[in-house]
Amino acid sequence: METQRYLPGIHGPEDLKKLPDAALPALAAEIREEMIGTVSKNGGHLASNLGVVELTIALLRVFDSPRDKIVWDVGHQCYAFKMLTGRAERFDTLRKPGGLSGFTRRYESEHDIFSGGHSSVALSAAYGIAAANKLSGSKNYTVAVVGDGAFTGGMVYEALNNAGRAGKGTRLIVILNDNEMSISENVGSLARYLAMIKANPRYFRLKARTEQALNRIPLVGRPTAQALYQAKTKLKNRIYNSTMFEDLGFRYMGPLDGHDIGHLCEALRGAVEADYPILLHVNTRKGKGYSFAEQHPDTFHGISAFDLVSGETLYAGASFSDRFGAYIAEAGERDARICCITAAMALGTGLEGFNRRFPDRFFDVGIAEQHATTFAAGLARGGMLPVFAVYSTFLQRAYDQIIHDCAMQGLKVVFAVDRAGFVGADGESHQGVFDTAFLNSVPDITVYSPATFAELDACFTEALYHTEGSAAVRYPRGLEPVLPAGYEPAGTAWSRFGPENAAVSVVTYGKCFAEAAEACETLKEKGVTAQLIKLTRVKPIPREAVLSAAKSAFVFFFEEGQRFGGIGETFADKLLKYRFRGRYVLTAVQGEFSVQDSIPALYHTYRLDSAGIVETVLAEIRTDPEKNAE
Amino acid sequence: METQRYLPGIHGPEDLKKLPDAALPALAAEIREEMIGTVSKNGGHLASNLGVVELTIALLRVFDSPRDKIVWDVGHQCYAFKMLTGRAERFDTLRKPGGLSGFTRRYESEHDIFSGGHSSVALSAAYGIAAANKLSGSKNYTVAVVGDGAFTGGMVYEALNNAGRAGKGTRLIVILNDNEMSISENVGSLARYLAMIKANPRYFRLKARTEQALNRIPLVGRPTAQALYQAKTKLKNRIYNSTMFEDLGFRYMGPLDGHDIGHLCEALRGAVEADYPILLHVNTRKGKGYSFAEQHPDTFHGISAFDLVSGETLYAGASFSDRFGAYIAEAGERDARICCITAAMALGTGLEGFNRRFPDRFFDVGIAEQHATTFAAGLARGGMLPVFAVYSTFLQRAYDQIIHDCAMQGLKVVFAVDRAGFVGADGESHQGVFDTAFLNSVPDITVYSPATFAELDACFTEALYHTEGSAAVRYPRGLEPVLPAGYEPAGTAWSRFGPENAAVSVVTYGKCFAEAAEACETLKEKGVTAQLIKLTRVKPIPREAVLSAAKSAFVFFFEEGQRFGGIGETFADKLLKYRFRGRYVLTAVQGEFSVQDSIPALYHTYRLDSAGIVETVLAEIRTDPEKNAE
Repeated sequence: METQRYLPGIHGPEDLKKLPDAALPALAAEIREEMIGTVSKNGGHLASNLGVVELTIALLRVFDSPRDKIVWDVGHQCYAFKMLTGRAERFDTLRKPGGLSGFTRRYESEHDIFSGGHSSVALSAAYGIAAANKLSGSKNYTVAVVGDGAFTGGMVYEALNNAGRAGKGTRLIVILNDNEMSISENVGSLARYLAMIKANPRYFRLKARTEQALNRIPLVGRPTAQALYQAKTKLKNRIYNSTMFEDLGFRYMGPLDGHDIGHLCEALRGAVEADYPILLHVNTRKGKGYSFAEQHPDTFHGISAFDLVSGETLYAGASFSDRFGAYIAEAGERDARICCITAAMALGTGLEGFNRRFPDRFFDVGIAEQHATTFAAGLARGGMLPVFAVYSTFLQRAYDQIIHDCAMQGLKVVFAVDRAGFVGADGESHQGVFDTAFLNSVPDITVYSPATFAELDACFTEALYHTEGSAAVRYPRGLEPVLPAGYEPAGTAWSRFGPENAAVSVVTYGKCFAEAAEACETLKEKGVTAQLIKLTRVKPIPREAVLSAAKSAFVFFFEEGQRFGGIGETFADKLLKYRFRGRYVLTAVQGEFSVQDSIPALYHTYRLDSAGIVETVLAEIRTDPEKNAE
Repeated sequence: METQRYLPGIHGPEDLKKLPDAALPALAAEIREEMIGTVSKNGGHLASNLGVVELTIALLRVFDSPRDKIVWDVGHQCYAFKMLTGRAERFDTLRKPGGLSGFTRRYESEHDIFSGGHSSVALSAAYGIAAANKLSGSKNYTVAVVGDGAFTGGMVYEALNNAGRAGKGTRLIVILNDNEMSISENVGSLARYLAMIKANPRYFRLKARTEQALNRIPLVGRPTAQALYQAKTKLKNRIYNSTMFEDLGFRYMGPLDGHDIGHLCEALRGAVEADYPILLHVNTRKGKGYSFAEQHPDTFHGISAFDLVSGETLYAGASFSDRFGAYIAEAGERDARICCITAAMALGTGLEGFNRRFPDRFFDVGIAEQHATTFAAGLARGGMLPVFAVYSTFLQRAYDQIIHDCAMQGLKVVFAVDRAGFVGADGESHQGVFDTAFLNSVPDITVYSPATFAELDACFTEALYHTEGSAAVRYPRGLEPVLPAGYEPAGTAWSRFGPENAAVSVVTYGKCFAEAAEACETLKEKGVTAQLIKLTRVKPIPREAVLSAAKSAFVFFFEEGQRFGGIGETFADKLLKYRFRGRYVLTAVQGEFSVQDSIPALYHTYRLDSAGIVETVLAEIRTDPEKNAE
């Protein structure tokens, strides 16, 4: 006898709505099976997605997507949503080149209202949409689904503070998806009993009437009014059982069992009738339905391909993150001033070892890169040697704090910039291709871009002990690249390989160096001798490196980063300063967002792999010399 | 009979501590007199400074600065602090070249613990210092003074959320300087009576003991424990009269009368004995002691020189902000989709008129540039045409949101970037010299830099109706520059003045164009004919402008902005792409922080004024041609 499968029959929310309630648990199980199978093969976010299957079903049953707009914060929990909005058949293409994104993407579906990736922005976006709806007279709802982790990011409070006062007619529902980390004891202690009462529309009408009566009491004036005001405040607190969210103007409902579809639907229908900004607190379990993930939600947060039966990742060796973790733990042993800071990425940045050995000097600040940066500046001001380990893409959020609180004050904060360069399958929202450009514009900061583990160590030692002011050491995702023999870089400024007076100079930095080295070997075989200049310090660019390149007739710069504002453009200006009159060809990420693809494929697309480098060089030097002389 | 003056005898906190309590009100009056006199002449922040005179006196009497560290958020309320920490004699140099800064500056005094300027960072910095003190065993206190306005910025919550759990031994006191804007009704409703009780150390000891007893009740386990836990939560709320701040782990004390020095000192001493992170809520009146400022704290927030008797500013004409305000109010009339957003700068950005006419489409989000940007993206997603008017220096805080929530999604948000370029006396924390560089690195955004009012209008029309995706229009502080006859730029791409085939090309954008035009006139008189290329769209740079410049033997680029990552470097790369072989000389803000000075003086320092431009051009073209050929 065959089990009935529901998922293949669902091509959009309308099909989901036709299913009887009794079929929903089976559907949830199908969705989970599909998720685990695909993520085990393609990698991706697992624990967070397993946790919101029932919530997703409830949202799509109660609301009318895409007219009602569901905005997923980060978007790393949207797999069930993708399957139920017409993308189940293509789900096995998740995170593959040309396949479904692991995040919400506007171009992928009309149901993906807002492209995700970075944390804590959904409420701001959803409130914008809800405000636009109110202005244009639309009665549609906007729902933001925000994890409790994202509530550690300040943008959520900025948004709550604004949306909370938007008042009647703003059809906005915030779902606080609470999957373990407690925000506040007050919130955590509210009983389900109260949630059920509050979810009852009759209760809301009563509440609204009481509030009107209370608001008629004058707030200022004679002593009597004052006393009444105090009584009013107490009364309000008692009625609303005030939480932080109510302080900020939201109606609070919860906490609800996030795995009980019936209760969720009931509460959502209650919220819809309220016609006020609502915060619905939902408890979910990360990893729900897959035992390995339930036990280790951290490991299964963002994950590479893994073995379905053992739950072990298919692991490939030591990464740059591991090497940084080992370096900094040792440094912490020798120097008691070293403190490490992470914005909720202890595991990803390799800081677990440091945390175990020096818990007092380890600070996980939540998803709060701005605070992390200024807090580090404060630690420095107090005499410590702070190291903030952060992914390149997330450091974008601290641009102002780097300028204003670190560099401007000459305080030494060392930024360990992980995942610098292409990151692969996470796609355009996560590519670390902006850090060299935005750090380039910051005065009084030094930026290193090592290509090997040995260079990584040397750069951190230089940044910690021999550099004035703040410094960043940026390094790629993944393993140490394999270098051809004879291409071992040394020092922390720059290295040269090949003859100084070659007509061709190839200049690069970071991991791309390995490709450039291979390319130079190939070029040699083809009779073209090139000088390879490897910048290890990219800001300020070592003057001698520019002078050396300026002697060539052809200078080729290869940059795994944004072209505009990047290091290659600075190099161009410096070449002109030193009266270079040859040909300069800059190959970089050409002012666009780089979509999801494997890292080698992205190298190939942007002509930063050895084949692309060889081709670029040969194409240019073989151009008619007459044309070159024009 | 002469009144005794105390201020001249105070050369540091130790002198202040020797004064009898009875002398303090007279001292406060002296400080206010000094403030009003100097600000009426030099301009500056007045209302905020008048409000914290007593608080400053109390802080310096109770704490031991600079061993105890007082961190002022923004720092625009530190005038009394400067006077009382040895800088009274130099106070008349406030905001003058080489004089005292209008903000805290580390290089100025050992009492200026952290350089200020941007909002909402003090608590992060102070917690960093307090954490360092705890690690190194120091018993000194760290105090952060944060205005209620700054509490609308998310960083404050990020910091509260972290510092609140730091617990015993973290000697951190946050002073919430509440000078009108209410954050939460709950907070506003607490009685002074409670504050006095809480400020009593005996009460704190009692509270600590009660808490210990409560903590011994187990939290999980059998049903009995659950019931006890609920009881515990209720009890806690009753004891602590829980506020949002206590939800985040702080002990709350207040509100206190911020103009009663005796009460303030008493409360601060109580806080010191607590040995826990404390939040002290102090009510102050903005503009206290100067009637015009009390009545119009907005106008007297940041102010130019004004008439002491009438309170009128010495006003000079319509600014770019005024022109933008007029444009956008008219546009709002024609197009009901236009929404305006400000981050607490309605007056400064010229949006008051729009607000009066279209209050429903006007959003002041508080000091929350990140939320403002993503909220605008949400409005765009909902079909509106959002315009976020913001000072260049504050837009730095939204770099990630511009990339991730606007550009990456192809949503049209128009940024009205005011105070782009030098701002003058506010100094290094406020110079708008980064926007061209950081916007340069953002894909799929268009950036305009008009130099005249007519161009401003044209650029906004282009940005709103004829540009795909997000766009920024950046314009300077102050009045429209005066142009020599024949130099009226047209269109929104670029303009050329002078002969196309001149050996010398001068390229610039923004307000610097007026200086360049004057310089070209002077050069003509000296026999040097130059082509002047004025970029109006700086990203992407119009190709034809580069091609035109590339024909010259000498190209001079003048940029009122950061050199590294800026438009001039992009221009250099493009020149090389088009096989330029002449001399390229880029003059820009050379990778440093620009200190306080008048705008004309800063133009002169960076050789961006007409004299500097003429000199730079002549020096280069008169260099020995042999040398040029090298």
